[in-house]
Amino acid sequence: MASEFDLIDRYFKRPAPAGMLGVGDDCALFDVPAGMQVATSTDLLIEGRHFFADVDPRALGHKSLAVNVSDLAAMGARPIGCLLGLALPRADESWVAAFAQGFHAMADQAGCPLIGGDTTGNPGALAISVTVFGAVRPDAALRRAGARVGDDIWVSGTLGDADIAYRLMSGQMPADDALLARTRTALEWPQPRFTLGPALAGVAHAAIDISDGLLQDLGHILKASRVGARLYLDAMPVSAALADVAPARVRHAVLAGGDVYELCFTAPPDRAAAIRGIGDDCGVAVSRIGVVEAGGELAVLDADGTPLRDLPRGFDHFRSS
Amino acid sequence: MASEFDLIDRYFKRPAPAGMLGVGDDCALFDVPAGMQVATSTDLLIEGRHFFADVDPRALGHKSLAVNVSDLAAMGARPIGCLLGLALPRADESWVAAFAQGFHAMADQAGCPLIGGDTTGNPGALAISVTVFGAVRPDAALRRAGARVGDDIWVSGTLGDADIAYRLMSGQMPADDALLARTRTALEWPQPRFTLGPALAGVAHAAIDISDGLLQDLGHILKASRVGARLYLDAMPVSAALADVAPARVRHAVLAGGDVYELCFTAPPDRAAAIRGIGDDCGVAVSRIGVVEAGGELAVLDADGTPLRDLPRGFDHFRSS
Repeated sequence: MASEFDLIDRYFKRPAPAGMLGVGDDCALFDVPAGMQVATSTDLLIEGRHFFADVDPRALGHKSLAVNVSDLAAMGARPIGCLLGLALPRADESWVAAFAQGFHAMADQAGCPLIGGDTTGNPGALAISVTVFGAVRPDAALRRAGARVGDDIWVSGTLGDADIAYRLMSGQMPADDALLARTRTALEWPQPRFTLGPALAGVAHAAIDISDGLLQDLGHILKASRVGARLYLDAMPVSAALADVAPARVRHAVLAGGDVYELCFTAPPDRAAAIRGIGDDCGVAVSRIGVVEAGGELAVLDADGTPLRDLPRGFDHFRSS
Repeated sequence: MASEFDLIDRYFKRPAPAGMLGVGDDCALFDVPAGMQVATSTDLLIEGRHFFADVDPRALGHKSLAVNVSDLAAMGARPIGCLLGLALPRADESWVAAFAQGFHAMADQAGCPLIGGDTTGNPGALAISVTVFGAVRPDAALRRAGARVGDDIWVSGTLGDADIAYRLMSGQMPADDALLARTRTALEWPQPRFTLGPALAGVAHAAIDISDGLLQDLGHILKASRVGARLYLDAMPVSAALADVAPARVRHAVLAGGDVYELCFTAPPDRAAAIRGIGDDCGVAVSRIGVVEAGGELAVLDADGTPLRDLPRGFDHFRSS
């Protein structure tokens, strides 16, 4: 196997962007625009726990960064750069090359260049640590605690695909190649909303990304903001790929399916037109799915206005499997 | 086992320092002093690879952060805060409590509070990811490429202890409880030079911490700066704890032993008095051990001025074992 230093040089080292010192010193250095705070988030992903061992390494490289960029978006922060830690159990240079390709492509797309990291061998499972940095105006950051009674509740994109793909791949649903073909991209190549999130900063009150499922993640906003919510089931943006799936299965996927990386956010009703305009500018569908209410309850109403009973708990696919 | 969220709340969540948003949102937020750059570094540590599985968890918490704070020091950056990712294979709450205690104590000491992170279960080995942030004036950062011909070469503290402790604990040296008692602290509780490093910013030309051994790490400075060096063996600050160890063993430990986390730095000769003063102010011994020369060679001279042959390569204890 090529040494750690060789692999870094060959696949991860790139010229540092202007104003930055990148891979190859004790620290990476970066500038922060005047008046902005740094937003930062880190994830530690473990083979078998957070991804399948046989996943396409290019997709894994993409997703490792995408889920962290999604955290920046959920804070309303614009990406600055990222760090990558890799503990590699296998001497497989082509794997590293493909992983790096997927990672860099996501970094280029989001404007979040790799500026440092740590690569090591590991006798056990593959471990991936990603840390991202972004910049956000302190008064515009989309904190979980910002929701207010009367706010509309919105989600971006469509819901449900990733959950169905996961269930097909893990054998929890009977094999269906056509359905898997339609849904798999959502699970393996999630598109973080790195344009929409910063555009909502200062417009929306609160935001979160739906990594653990809509109800659970919205629940974090409600708890932090000390409010409740009412959601409308028939307002949910269900993926068209799920047209042939049993309604109960779809409902569960939409309300509780994790690994989505769409944004759930709240905003005053008088900003609805502005938010639709922002969605158009960013090329991302936005759907109004409910309202913030007083109290701590979370209710989901069906088309008749009847509250659903036994709401599914949110969960992380790989943790709960 | 208590859930991930419970463990975070109980052992890692603390009130965020002023101007920061800490654990519990999509991102942590922090301010950067005007005119400063952010310095950042990350490490991914794996059980069995970077530390013994039975290490005292309090020491492990300390060291996990200490080695990253050391990277900030080697850049001349003052700590701002840190992120922690933990993948836990065992349902051992007392282990987590002890780890958190050691981690927070180091964070308090260095002024580097934990502001966010990620905790997950892991079927395999314990994995620890730490990311640190610091602030440094762009023109004062101690980059590896800054050494100039004629600079003095300095190291802080003393060398050799950690290597001897590692060899005793791994069975590469015959058991010697008294010697282990004198050296073990250096291996398990390294003290990063978080005061000395920032004090040297703008005074020294280049710096690195000795995580992989003096010769290898100084070699990184020489390569990045396109210079060579001459070191004086009898100027090396050997730990007094090694007085009874065979000279060849000590020499190897001093020149090639990793896991030291002292700073090796270069500075113009006319700053020698200033550097001694900074060392005094910081309560850290500083020793002048050589000079930077033209060319790419690294020579170590014994007391007679004879260059040593077969210089030991630097290495990482746990990687090369």
